[in-house]
Amino acid sequence: MVKVVILGQGYVASIFAIGLERIKKGEIKYYGVPLKNELPIKIEEVEIVGSYDVDKNKIGKSLFEVVKNYWNNGVPETLKEIKIRKGIHLKSLKNLPIEAEGLEDNFSLKEIVEKLAEEWKSLRPDVIVNVCTTEAFVPFENKEELIKAIENDAKDRLTATQVYVYAAALYAKEVGGAAFVNTIPTLIANDPAYVELAKECNLVIFGDDGATGATPLTADILAHLAQRNRYVKDIVQFNIGGNTDFLALTDKERNKSKEFTKSSIVKDILGYDAPHFIKPTGFMEPLGDKKFISMHIEYISFNEAIDELIISGRINDSPALAGLIIDLVRLGKIAVEKKEFGTIYPVNAFYMKNPGPKEMHNLPRVVAYEKMRQWAGLTPLFTK
Amino acid sequence: MVKVVILGQGYVASIFAIGLERIKKGEIKYYGVPLKNELPIKIEEVEIVGSYDVDKNKIGKSLFEVVKNYWNNGVPETLKEIKIRKGIHLKSLKNLPIEAEGLEDNFSLKEIVEKLAEEWKSLRPDVIVNVCTTEAFVPFENKEELIKAIENDAKDRLTATQVYVYAAALYAKEVGGAAFVNTIPTLIANDPAYVELAKECNLVIFGDDGATGATPLTADILAHLAQRNRYVKDIVQFNIGGNTDFLALTDKERNKSKEFTKSSIVKDILGYDAPHFIKPTGFMEPLGDKKFISMHIEYISFNEAIDELIISGRINDSPALAGLIIDLVRLGKIAVEKKEFGTIYPVNAFYMKNPGPKEMHNLPRVVAYEKMRQWAGLTPLFTK
Amino acid sequence: MVKVVILGQGYVASIFAIGLERIKKGEIKYYGVPLKNELPIKIEEVEIVGSYDVDKNKIGKSLFEVVKNYWNNGVPETLKEIKIRKGIHLKSLKNLPIEAEGLEDNFSLKEIVEKLAEEWKSLRPDVIVNVCTTEAFVPFENKEELIKAIENDAKDRLTATQVYVYAAALYAKEVGGAAFVNTIPTLIANDPAYVELAKECNLVIFGDDGATGATPLTADILAHLAQRNRYVKDIVQFNIGGNTDFLALTDKERNKSKEFTKSSIVKDILGYDAPHFIKPTGFMEPLGDKKFISMHIEYISFNEAIDELIISGRINDSPALAGLIIDLVRLGKIAVEKKEFGTIYPVNAFYMKNPGPKEMHNLPRVVAYEKMRQWAGLTPLFTK
Amino acid sequence: MVKVVILGQGYVASIFAIGLERIKKGEIKYYGVPLKNELPIKIEEVEIVGSYDVDKNKIGKSLFEVVKNYWNNGVPETLKEIKIRKGIHLKSLKNLPIEAEGLEDNFSLKEIVEKLAEEWKSLRPDVIVNVCTTEAFVPFENKEELIKAIENDAKDRLTATQVYVYAAALYAKEVGGAAFVNTIPTLIANDPAYVELAKECNLVIFGDDGATGATPLTADILAHLAQRNRYVKDIVQFNIGGNTDFLALTDKERNKSKEFTKSSIVKDILGYDAPHFIKPTGFMEPLGDKKFISMHIEYISFNEAIDELIISGRINDSPALAGLIIDLVRLGKIAVEKKEFGTIYPVNAFYMKNPGPKEMHNLPRVVAYEKMRQWAGLTPLFTK
Repeated sequence: MVKVVILGQGYVASIFAIGLERIKKGEIKYYGVPLKNELPIKIEEVEIVGSYDVDKNKIGKSLFEVVKNYWNNGVPETLKEIKIRKGIHLKSLKNLPIEAEGLEDNFSLKEIVEKLAEEWKSLRPDVIVNVCTTEAFVPFENKEELIKAIENDAKDRLTATQVYVYAAALYAKEVGGAAFVNTIPTLIANDPAYVELAKECNLVIFGDDGATGATPLTADILAHLAQRNRYVKDIVQFNIGGNTDFLALTDKERNKSKEFTKSSIVKDILGYDAPHFIKPTGFMEPLGDKKFISMHIEYISFNEAIDELIISGRINDSPALAGLIIDLVRLGKIAVEKKEFGTIYPVNAFYMKNPGPKEMHNLPRVVAYEKMRQWAGLTPLFTK
Repeated sequence: MVKVVILGQGYVASIFAIGLERIKKGEIKYYGVPLKNELPIKIEEVEIVGSYDVDKNKIGKSLFEVVKNYWNNGVPETLKEIKIRKGIHLKSLKNLPIEAEGLEDNFSLKEIVEKLAEEWKSLRPDVIVNVCTTEAFVPFENKEELIKAIENDAKDRLTATQVYVYAAALYAKEVGGAAFVNTIPTLIANDPAYVELAKECNLVIFGDDGATGATPLTADILAHLAQRNRYVKDIVQFNIGGNTDFLALTDKERNKSKEFTKSSIVKDILGYDAPHFIKPTGFMEPLGDKKFISMHIEYISFNEAIDELIISGRINDSPALAGLIIDLVRLGKIAVEKKEFGTIYPVNAFYMKNPGPKEMHNLPRVVAYEKMRQWAGLTPLFTK
Repeated sequence: MVKVVILGQGYVASIFAIGLERIKKGEIKYYGVPLKNELPIKIEEVEIVGSYDVDKNKIGKSLFEVVKNYWNNGVPETLKEIKIRKGIHLKSLKNLPIEAEGLEDNFSLKEIVEKLAEEWKSLRPDVIVNVCTTEAFVPFENKEELIKAIENDAKDRLTATQVYVYAAALYAKEVGGAAFVNTIPTLIANDPAYVELAKECNLVIFGDDGATGATPLTADILAHLAQRNRYVKDIVQFNIGGNTDFLALTDKERNKSKEFTKSSIVKDILGYDAPHFIKPTGFMEPLGDKKFISMHIEYISFNEAIDELIISGRINDSPALAGLIIDLVRLGKIAVEKKEFGTIYPVNAFYMKNPGPKEMHNLPRVVAYEKMRQWAGLTPLFTK
Repeated sequence: MVKVVILGQGYVASIFAIGLERIKKGEIKYYGVPLKNELPIKIEEVEIVGSYDVDKNKIGKSLFEVVKNYWNNGVPETLKEIKIRKGIHLKSLKNLPIEAEGLEDNFSLKEIVEKLAEEWKSLRPDVIVNVCTTEAFVPFENKEELIKAIENDAKDRLTATQVYVYAAALYAKEVGGAAFVNTIPTLIANDPAYVELAKECNLVIFGDDGATGATPLTADILAHLAQRNRYVKDIVQFNIGGNTDFLALTDKERNKSKEFTKSSIVKDILGYDAPHFIKPTGFMEPLGDKKFISMHIEYISFNEAIDELIISGRINDSPALAGLIIDLVRLGKIAVEKKEFGTIYPVNAFYMKNPGPKEMHNLPRVVAYEKMRQWAGLTPLFTK
């Protein structure tokens, strides 16, 4: 059994909840779940035990009610039992058309982290999954500063995610172990302050920024070119979508944090910093969750011949991430059982756009996948 | 030093000759050569010592004269010393607008293979590279049948390539070792008859069908999907070009041999035979050597979401293969030095569309690349 | 009121029937119907009074039953009253996985055309719409030969369409006027034999080959280039789909008739015969009715600059044509009322890939559209 | 003979100069010139008599020297005779890596316009072509305010273009007629202040914003959809390039003026304001003048089927505009001869993204083209 608490009951978390229940009912196959049901912990053992949000229209409603807004082909009744609890937002919803309320309206940061740790002690999650909206943030780097910021109630200094992880660390310390999965760009697995805290508190951190969409595909295509020593002249990657995350990214500050994790793959894979334009490009409401991506890659082949690739796609954003989370919560529990606290590169390298810890780089995903399987005790898929 | 004999002085062989000389003169970088100059045998040590063709307009001319037709920005004078010799064509040029003459006009197959072996004994190539036009062929499977066909002068049974490899085996046996690189779809490394012959005669065979163009890229993209357990609904891959090879492929029989090697990747990588339409689609003269490719891949993601990728490209056909040959001739010599006669899967798996021996399958190229480096005694590029 | 008889109750005819009923019920807008509800004859006045097919599994069933196989989101009950009647197929279903039976099993051609004319005299259609599968055919050119072929029961000489039009002419002659809409490539509006016959018999013919899919779009893009005097170097147009029509086109003979009408636009629009590869490329079952198209156009701009366009798309085949038919049946009735017997170029030029009569050419569709509106007595959309 | 003065000797103006001279020498065909040599004034009669710029590295150099930086395959010697004169820049070069100097460094606006008018009286241009960098600007709307701004030396209020047109009006008044071609987004033909001024001063204005690149193609594709009553759900149009204009557009203010003219086509053609994201998206130096464009259009067809088009392209930016200018200067002279002062919609509607005067809208280009021919006294190309 893997008990899961969700932070941010939006599109991804809702598809995660629906897909999970449908798998349990045998309605759908394991498509989109990289490790299928190969792990000793089965998908059917995953259970959502709590969910947090800050949208006034969601707080207090049942998971069933909320999930219905994102998918309406028979939402499982089982989701009626979980009520959405009030979380924190701090700066994270500005510019979005959402009426927000958060624990910060009534409590200090210190009170909030204690309150959350207390709630979790009764819910008893093995894994806490962060699927909040992309935030503008500043990493801490230094654990003492982080602790001080919480003590001083520095609500302007921290983002919601940064507070949630702190609460998760308190909780993990008390119960002897837990995992936190950070699927958004806020640096957590890449922030030494948090990694140090996690090690001390029996917390496993997976992060940062779930590797979905065009970026992991770009990584594998660049690896393909690098292995043939084709010299990449330039890379362009546009993407536009209509879900809340794309709307959030029209905010410049947030966009920057995304741009960073997306761009880092170029140098990591190619070994040189090919000119690139890789960033979320816009918001187009009618596209919904199925974003449009367009890539252009130009490279030099043998005898100075110039080749060109153009890759376009329509990709469902939320299911891609939700499928990864099905693995991540199970791997999180396995890591806790192995007592590998801190952050775990072999897992991050496959599932995350910006795999922590900070000093580590991107691998071609095809390679990272096999290393991850190895960590999880599985036989290789290809490298037999 | 690696001495090379070329069979089929067309587009690929001409770009190979030009690029090689330009690298020697320091005019261009190693782009398009997968192993750059990492091998103990340096690119600058490769030397073309002979070239064969069956086009009346090429036989007897200098390499310089022939190469000029494919590239005209200053062909190196060094190519003036090599004269194009008369080879064999058998059925391989029918339907093409080429006036052909071949050794078969005057000699029996047995005489031809002996004559070629004799010529090579004076040229002393380490590696013989086959870059003939795609052929319609029937594999032998059984060595005795092959020998009998040569003895019986069964000119209708063998293709040019099948005769050339036989001659190469005779030659290798006498000089103690040589390599044959088969870059076209005719099954050689995948024909047990030839692999057995090679082992007995100190011949190294690399083959079959050089892994250029859309197919290896498709393989890596399919691997990307397989590792995320995305279920591929269908794959379409069109490609059209204007060089002689595309013209040759308008012939149905030849096209089939190409279709086979292209399609085999689907099941090899995905593990199931997703519906696919993968074949050379047409000839369009003005596109020249820079073919147009278009792919469409549709797959099922988590919670039954359906995603779509569309990949288009303009890719120079001949430089892609010529760059691989720069590696293959060096690896051929290394294999001979190691006395690894027969065929060598770790090399084939990266460089060939249909890697021999027959019982072996396609690997994702990203994985195959590292295995090949390992075989060549190099450190991994990514899997550190 | 426009009474319609359908020949070939496949995908297109089924979407036509469903969409029509849904419009009548106010469920959907007029999208995909070029003239919306601007004509004096309203869409709501169109009524299907009969339908013919040769599939054993369809004959005798209700339209409701058949239509359900193509679309299953609430088929209107109104379709229950029409029974599918037995038609003719002659050579038109060979190679298709359909068990066919036709009137030709029991009757001579002469008997068939009389029998059909008789049936229609009781059904009283204003318009007969031919949406059969693409046929391999030979045009007649000469009316006497056509008549002789019917008399001689030359079942190998005629296709189903060629027989149906003959029957329609008999019928039109007797009732004083009717229209025949030919949406497939078989030359009817382009066959002088049929146009002459139509004039004599009070028949209006619209044809040939409904202008859907990539071809009219290509025509408009070529017009765009022609108007800027950009010189088209080459055009490639691939398309692949999974409906019965694509399956039928894997048959070489049928494919040729399609290729012809698709290719004729190049010279008609550009004024020169730019090298082109335009033909249905393959069958891929999982794509269903939503075909994948891919185009590549390369052209020379000012000062010899070379530009490139790549157009990809997913296009629903049947709704595109069904929407045109909503107009064509109304225009057919209008033409009969105007007594403009024979064929009508201003209508054909917009709605047909190969607009008859034979001596006429393709216009850019944007231009043809306005001419068609003019013919129909409507004000221009753009050329105010 | 058409004498031309150029304002802004950048990429476009240089390709214009080279292409023009190459046509005169018979080196190239008329490709990219919409009206070819059909006009009574022949291309060979066009002559550049003066050129202005504000780049310190260009002023004082010969046209030959400057043009060489943009194209180096044999620049015609004839360009050696023209020296680049100092123009004005005002706010127009901020953020660009160009060391600028302008007449404004030493003169008041009033002095500048008089000085320019004087220079032109000796050069005697028939047509003045503005190909400056895209500017951030505020239109005047009111002629009196414009005059006052010049009088008051309001250098912060006017852009270079706004000053140049004023000077052109002075010049035209004195010589009895001249034309001004505005190929950039600054509203001139769409500013009633300038149109009124032009009418009074015998000036012909063509503008605004030369219709090159993806926008006119989008217009024709939207017209194609509108004529079939396909309902456009959303339109995305990305484009990125490496020339100075794309660099200039990374400046937010400039980008806005471009976005406006690009977006206006949607409502003008479709009749409703379909959700769209159409704007220059970024700068990527290695792409050079050959920009990458990517479009995505989703629309509803009959019976609520949803279709999708994806259009990608590599398009040479400067030659596209330079080819139009070859026509515009000749049409400018024709308009002066006809004494049609003010602005001329039939010319603007085809050649300009934002055709003036202000109250007029975009037409599908295919239609606009024929109207323009008609204005120029030519027979229709298609609408015979």
